[in-house]
Formats: sequence, structure tokens, C-alpha cells
Amino acid sequence: MTREDLFTQICSKKSYLCIGLDPDPAKIPQHLMVYEDPVFEFNRQIIEATKEYCIAYKPNLAFYESMGPKGLMSLEKTMACIPRGVFTIADAKRGDIGNTSTLYAKAYFEYFQFDAITVAPYMGEDSVKPFLDFKNKWVILLALTSNKGASDFQVLTVEHQGGNKKLYETVIEKSIEWGNSGNMMYVTGATRADHLKHIRKMLPDHFLLVPGIGAQGGSLEEVSVNGLNAQGGLLVNSSRQILYASSGKDFASKAGAEARLVQQEMEKHLQNKGLLS
Amino acid sequence: MTREDLFTQICSKKSYLCIGLDPDPAKIPQHLMVYEDPVFEFNRQIIEATKEYCIAYKPNLAFYESMGPKGLMSLEKTMACIPRGVFTIADAKRGDIGNTSTLYAKAYFEYFQFDAITVAPYMGEDSVKPFLDFKNKWVILLALTSNKGASDFQVLTVEHQGGNKKLYETVIEKSIEWGNSGNMMYVTGATRADHLKHIRKMLPDHFLLVPGIGAQGGSLEEVSVNGLNAQGGLLVNSSRQILYASSGKDFASKAGAEARLVQQEMEKHLQNKGLLS
Repeated sequence: MTREDLFTQICSKKSYLCIGLDPDPAKIPQHLMVYEDPVFEFNRQIIEATKEYCIAYKPNLAFYESMGPKGLMSLEKTMACIPRGVFTIADAKRGDIGNTSTLYAKAYFEYFQFDAITVAPYMGEDSVKPFLDFKNKWVILLALTSNKGASDFQVLTVEHQGGNKKLYETVIEKSIEWGNSGNMMYVTGATRADHLKHIRKMLPDHFLLVPGIGAQGGSLEEVSVNGLNAQGGLLVNSSRQILYASSGKDFASKAGAEARLVQQEMEKHLQNKGLLS
Repeated sequence: MTREDLFTQICSKKSYLCIGLDPDPAKIPQHLMVYEDPVFEFNRQIIEATKEYCIAYKPNLAFYESMGPKGLMSLEKTMACIPRGVFTIADAKRGDIGNTSTLYAKAYFEYFQFDAITVAPYMGEDSVKPFLDFKNKWVILLALTSNKGASDFQVLTVEHQGGNKKLYETVIEKSIEWGNSGNMMYVTGATRADHLKHIRKMLPDHFLLVPGIGAQGGSLEEVSVNGLNAQGGLLVNSSRQILYASSGKDFASKAGAEARLVQQEMEKHLQNKGLLS
């Protein structure tokens, strides 16, 4: 999917919501347990109820891997029922030496047919570039994450090209030369609005994937005001707040209602930014 | 498996060889293609031929994930035929926010029953610690990797506690407080012998996992002289050199012979270090 396709989606759905498909076996409603594959059935009903309000789905691989091969089967079936035209992100945070990153790219871009994968930058250029060799596919590189541990390394001051930069700034500066705004996005924690503002300045054109809305405490308004650009440029993720809006038989309709609320707020922000005709 | 168990293995097998089980579909001998699961059959015969000469196996997850759920089934069967007492490492380079890292830990420590997993440090303490909550299981943290891209971020100078350190040194300094030499190891690229010497000074007691021997160009002698400590403290990995010693029907016996050669050199280094009675 191209950057233009993404912007078209944003305008037609009036949304930049990404829903994290993170099915926690302990939280899947009891009445789904009669299905052969409760994880898939949960995802299927969530997708059915929310697909009008979001432009992307982001399964976090850990949830599927923790169930072994069966989990990857649930993922495969889930991917097959996400409508064409909706952006899909493998939240995998992979990264390895070159030939191994190529295999991860094959796994998620070819086998599972995701549009994008999250990648960790620690191993540098040759661990990231293999993902960029796949046409119309995306790397979403970790820059500044939303967790407490982000303060351990990401914000340390680093000597780079004579100047002093934070590590996440250096990650951004170096990596923008590896790809472009048509095949790279960046993960930017929503719990740090001042940082988001700053990152938007560094990356005026790139899409930013912002986790941390809702359960993790970020404000959608702050993120939108500081993050939206002329092509939208934002994917804001929500997982638990939508997936687990209810634990009863109405879980899907409650998830849909919750997604709709977020979409409506997003519509307002898109309007304020003059992005909707 | 405990640190003492590992040392016992090293002494009894006179080896600190770790074999990377990275089955490349393009390199699996043709005659195995008649099997229902050629990847598993390849691994099974490699394990059978090499198990006397190594103390650990390290499947790299990318090779299995690239085949989808079927790949994880091959991995599951492979794990079941690794003899008890042999150390197993999931080379997964995972790392995510806390509750997600816990799920990765469950995937690899509980579902697949690995002894250890490789973890990327970029997201900091709360992305690593969940793996340390599992008894007798190990985190092998990326410190200095053996690829070219290691120079992009890992060796940059970082301001930390008033002094200037390289990023990988800061990763080591901070993370040694998260665990101990009984549940943490570090990945240290063998292509940089001077760095290995330095890391051994920083981590006199910890085990180091050293990739990059053979195909990646590292010297076993240098690694051994600079890396062995009083409890062995080294796992030296070889993958391609052993797995693909032959592409014919004799692939397993050739792999065994190759592993034996490495083991014999290791025996010599253990003797020189006075570790064998």
C-alpha cells in the first residue's frame, strides 16, 4: 500500500485509528470458548464491528507466538478476513543480521501478507534495509517508545557528527537515509507530547505510528494537534480500550461503539487541520 | 538450566560449541525433500550427528517463521529431539513493553521449552525484566553484534553517569543490575577481538554468546584466549560452516565431522586454560 492510498483511506473513513489485535486468552469472552479457534473468532467479530472506523489493524506477534503453531494459524485466518485496502502492521519488533532480516521480511510481507512490520534499530542499517527491498511494504522503526524503559537508552545523549543528540534522534537522523517517507514510518510514544512535537519537526513528511492512547495514558487531542501533517501522517493505535470494552456477549458491538467514538474525535481533528473537503 | 549445569556440560563434552539450527530451504539437501517435513528431518539428522560435540543448539526463529505455522511445527518437533541436558537458545531478538515481553517469554520458555532467548535492549529495563522472572531460564542480551550495522548505534559515545561510554557499554552497565550471571548472558560479536577482551573485563563472570565464527570471519583462537573464564563462560556459535559442510547425502556425517573439528580445537583451548582435569 502506498502513502497516497493511506491518505485516501484517512479521508474516506475520516479516521487514522489503528486497532491492535492483541487477543489475550484470559480476556476473551467466555462464550467464545465453544468455537474451535476462539482467538480467531474474537478477532473476526472485532474486525467485523470496527472495520468502518479504523484504517489499520496491528496484531502483536507475541500474543500469537505464545500459543505456538496454533497461534500462527489464528493469525493467518485473521489476516484473511481483514478487508482489502485496510493497512496491516505486524507488530513484531524484529531486527537481525541481513540474511535473517530478509527471512523475517519474507515471513511477514510474503507469507502473512502484511503491509508493514515494526523493526528495532539496535543492529543498525543492514538489519533494517532488507525489509525496504519489498515493494509497497513498510518498515515502522522504533524511535521513541511509550514504555518506562524508553528512558534507559533512547533518551541518552549521544555524540554524533560533532553534535550532541539523543539516541532516538540519532536513530531517526541515520535511518531517514535508508528509506523515504514512502516506505518508512516511526514508532513514537504518545505519552510524551513534547517529544512528538519535536519528532514531527524532524520528520515533517513521514507517517508516525503512535501507541499509548487509552490504557497507556496518552491524549488523542495532544497527539493529533502535534502529529497531523498535510497527508494525515498519523496512525494512532488503541488496543485494550477497544478490544475489551465489554467482556460479555456484546463485546463486539461495544468495541465497535468505542472505535466509533475515537473515529468521531479523529474526524474533528482532521477537520480542524483542514484535511477534509 | 543453571550456570553450574552449563559448566558441567562444557567439562564433560570438552566443548563450548553452540550450533545454529538455521535451516535454509534453498540449502537443504535435495534427497530430504521426499520427507513430509524436510526441515525437521534435516535438523533431526544434524542433531543426531553433532550432539556429542556441542553443548547448545540455537534455532534462529526467522528461518521457521518464514514458513508460517508449519515452520513453528518443525521447530516444535526439533525441540523434542534435542537431548535433555543440551542448552537451547531461541535466537529471536525479541523485546517489547512489559506485558508483551511476558508473552514472548511464555512462548519460548513455556510453549517451546527453550532454556534461553536472545533479547534486544532498545526498549530498556521493563522490556527485558519479564524474561528474568522465569526460573532457570536465561536472557541473552544483544550487546555488541557481529554485523556491519553494529557500528551505526552500538559503538556511538553516550553520556552516562557523568562519563562517556559507548552505547553497548552502557547497555551492559545498566543491564547487569537487572539480573545476574546466573540468568543473563550477552551477545558479543567475534569479529572484534579487542572488544571481546574489553567486554570480558566488564563481565568477568557472565557467559558470552559469540556468533560470527566461520562464515562471518571470526577466529576461534582469539575468541577463546580472550573470552574463556574460570567457568568456561563462552558459547561459541557456528551455523553455516557445520550445517552446510556438504549438500549431498553425506551432509549429516560431514556436519558431524566439522563439529568434531571445532570441538577438538575447543578442547585444546580448555586445556590451555586449565579447565579440564
